[in-house]
Amino acid sequence: MKVLQVRDAVKFNPEKLNKVSLFDTDKFFCDVYCLQPGQSQKVHSHEGSDKIYYVLEGKGKVTVGSEERELSRDEIALAPSGLDHGVVNHTQENLVMLVFMAPKP
Amino acid sequence: MKVLQVRDAVKFNPEKLNKVSLFDTDKFFCDVYCLQPGQSQKVHSHEGSDKIYYVLEGKGKVTVGSEERELSRDEIALAPSGLDHGVVNHTQENLVMLVFMAPKP
Repeated sequence: MKVLQVRDAVKFNPEKLNKVSLFDTDKFFCDVYCLQPGQSQKVHSHEGSDKIYYVLEGKGKVTVGSEERELSRDEIALAPSGLDHGVVNHTQENLVMLVFMAPKP
Repeated sequence: MKVLQVRDAVKFNPEKLNKVSLFDTDKFFCDVYCLQPGQSQKVHSHEGSDKIYYVLEGKGKVTVGSEERELSRDEIALAPSGLDHGVVNHTQENLVMLVFMAPKP
C-alpha cells in the first residue's frame, strides 16, 4: 500500500512554486503545491479536466473563471474543466495546498 | 466559484459511516467520510476507478488489497482500481477523511 505523510512531502523552492507529486496514476494526479510568499501558479485552463485546491497551511488567492477569492486553511475550491484558474500566495507566510486533478490532461 | 470549509461539512451519523459530498462532477467525486468509533466502510472494489484516502482527524485502519495499515492525521493512501479497499475506525475517537475518486464508477 502506498502511504505518504503529506507534511513530510512539503518542500519549497525559492525560485518558484514547487509541485510535489504524491500520486500519479493513469486516472488522476494528486500533488502538494508549496508556495512561498509572492509565488504563484499562473492562471491557465485545460479542457476536459477538473481540479480541486485544498488549503493545508496559509492563505492564497485562488482564481476560477473571472472570480478571485482568498482561501484559508481547510477551505477547498473546485476549478471546473475549461475555466481559467490559478493561485497566488499574496501573504507573508508560506502556502501549502493539496491539489487533485482528473482526468490527466 | 464553489468554495467549502471542509471542517464545517463534517457531520456524523450514529447509525453508520457518513459520506458528505463536497464536489461531484462528471469527472470525479470528493467526499468527507465521517466515522464514529467502530464504524467502517466495508472492503469493496471498483474496476476502473482509483481512490485516495486522506486522514484529516483521528486514526483508522485502511485496507488496500491484502494489506491493512493504521493511518494517522495527514497520512494519505492510494487504493488503485480493481483492488479491494475499505476503512474502519478501530479507535475510541472520531475519524474524518477526505476521499477522492476518479473516474466516477
